[in-house]
Amino acid sequence: MNTKDYLPLIESTLVSIFEGKEPYNLYEPIRYVLSIGGKRLRPTFALMACDLFGGKVNDAVYPACALEVYHNFTLLHDDIMDNADMRRGKPTVHKKWNENTAILSGDVMLSQAYEVMCRAEHSLLPSLLSVFNQTTIEVCEGQQYDMDFESRNDVTADEYIAMIRLKTAVLLAASLKIGAICAKASSKDADLIYEFGINVGLAFQLKDDWLDVYGDVKKFGKKIGGDICCNKKTYLLITALEKSSGDTKKSLTEWISKESFDRDEKVKAVTAIYNSLNIGKIAEEKMNSYYQKALESLNQLSLSADKKEVLKSIAESLLYRED
Amino acid sequence: MNTKDYLPLIESTLVSIFEGKEPYNLYEPIRYVLSIGGKRLRPTFALMACDLFGGKVNDAVYPACALEVYHNFTLLHDDIMDNADMRRGKPTVHKKWNENTAILSGDVMLSQAYEVMCRAEHSLLPSLLSVFNQTTIEVCEGQQYDMDFESRNDVTADEYIAMIRLKTAVLLAASLKIGAICAKASSKDADLIYEFGINVGLAFQLKDDWLDVYGDVKKFGKKIGGDICCNKKTYLLITALEKSSGDTKKSLTEWISKESFDRDEKVKAVTAIYNSLNIGKIAEEKMNSYYQKALESLNQLSLSADKKEVLKSIAESLLYRED
Repeated sequence: MNTKDYLPLIESTLVSIFEGKEPYNLYEPIRYVLSIGGKRLRPTFALMACDLFGGKVNDAVYPACALEVYHNFTLLHDDIMDNADMRRGKPTVHKKWNENTAILSGDVMLSQAYEVMCRAEHSLLPSLLSVFNQTTIEVCEGQQYDMDFESRNDVTADEYIAMIRLKTAVLLAASLKIGAICAKASSKDADLIYEFGINVGLAFQLKDDWLDVYGDVKKFGKKIGGDICCNKKTYLLITALEKSSGDTKKSLTEWISKESFDRDEKVKAVTAIYNSLNIGKIAEEKMNSYYQKALESLNQLSLSADKKEVLKSIAESLLYRED
Repeated sequence: MNTKDYLPLIESTLVSIFEGKEPYNLYEPIRYVLSIGGKRLRPTFALMACDLFGGKVNDAVYPACALEVYHNFTLLHDDIMDNADMRRGKPTVHKKWNENTAILSGDVMLSQAYEVMCRAEHSLLPSLLSVFNQTTIEVCEGQQYDMDFESRNDVTADEYIAMIRLKTAVLLAASLKIGAICAKASSKDADLIYEFGINVGLAFQLKDDWLDVYGDVKKFGKKIGGDICCNKKTYLLITALEKSSGDTKKSLTEWISKESFDRDEKVKAVTAIYNSLNIGKIAEEKMNSYYQKALESLNQLSLSADKKEVLKSIAESLLYRED
């Protein structure tokens, strides 16, 4: 099974959901944001899980696409909140149109995600919506903690993990669980694949943090050190603030509070501090510990060895990626 | 039956939904907006409909409150889009906190509304969500048409009615239908009470437009002529633009395009134009025609005469209100 095989179905379903919808000014930004791509990770996870548990992919395609519509809704609103100009190499909706458009088109995407989710077999709605409601609520809570952290200098690594669990991991986990539910997997399996997803999601975000500093310039899509420049409270920075003391801590704190600086100089200096504290290694170990936890849940699933191998290789491709 | 009897249950349920929820910065604005009041028209409609169709009020209380949470979510986001400073005599959320807070707290309110709706009996979820999804989508579509109309001078009365149907009427109608569904009313009755709600909702909004110009200064909560001042495309203005010609049309168009003007002078002049065109009367007649349509649906409901009387008196109290 190749996860790329699901893409044509995902793309054509996403197009069909919004094709020709009026009013134009409400739906055109949605067609735009859905057309500029993305890895379609969440619907792929859902279809794959449904497939692995013996379900028909067609029974999961609407819930799968609901997850992608939902994910893109969060991007629309996050980009306003972060004042981001570009997304996937294209202007963001609030830049190409305006802020009101990004708010309202986003709002209708969230409702449309629910509408599309409810196209599933009606007997599944209570379980599907229980996962989906919890997830859409938790993602907002994660985004709020992330914003709260910006104005705090005492965020602990545990708080950070709790935040990325909500902001990133739960949606990946929910995608797997929703696929499992569509295949009518047992609730034990549905819970185990959710736990697998949470731990893969946490490892995935830690890898993201790590790549910003230690990624290969040639392979990493973005410029190295973006998080360092804007003092983003990543696992690396938080751990460095926790582990450092004396002159090292003083120097790190000074770099954080500098209002004007040379970009490359700051990235170089903060990276040197990370290196002196072994932060890269600590982050990798943390990432691996979540990967190990993911494998523990994976092993308990009532799936054949070759199906478990599929999930394992997906996790590996996410965690050992270079961009 | 007095609809005020439902208020303590509605208020205590709304409080219980958000009590103690964290993160504080996400949920405090929601507790704030829900605490500053409002008529609770939508949950009252839902509980009343459930009651009239022989259901237990407790079976409808969560869906009813979901409608109120949803309605307040639309206010949070509409107030950003309209750049409104005050709501119900208090600062709006984006003024008291900031825009990002109003966006994100609004987003989680929409998800929480779905979560609360799903606390209904599970066998009812397909019908409840079918109405609720359609409604939350249509309200966004109505808001978009309303914003589109701002930059158009050729909006027809029919387009305006289609817009207020989406923006205002469908949520009132859905509230009644959702109450009926909770009482396990027949689908024919559920559809009829929805039609009743649509027509009452249209008449309600036309009354709103009318009150802005012809309301009693002492009883009307807001200052008379607010819509005239900002050229809001109400039924009155659209009809006046349609019906006028020659010097009258020229004068009306001039007042609309004036960048600086004396407020009272403009209100007086435009009101005089409306009077010369009999616009107040035309609006009242239109309102009454929807009220008559509402009564037609009402008469077809399989309810006793005294229960129909309850619905009729609710409609009357909305349409013959003075503020």
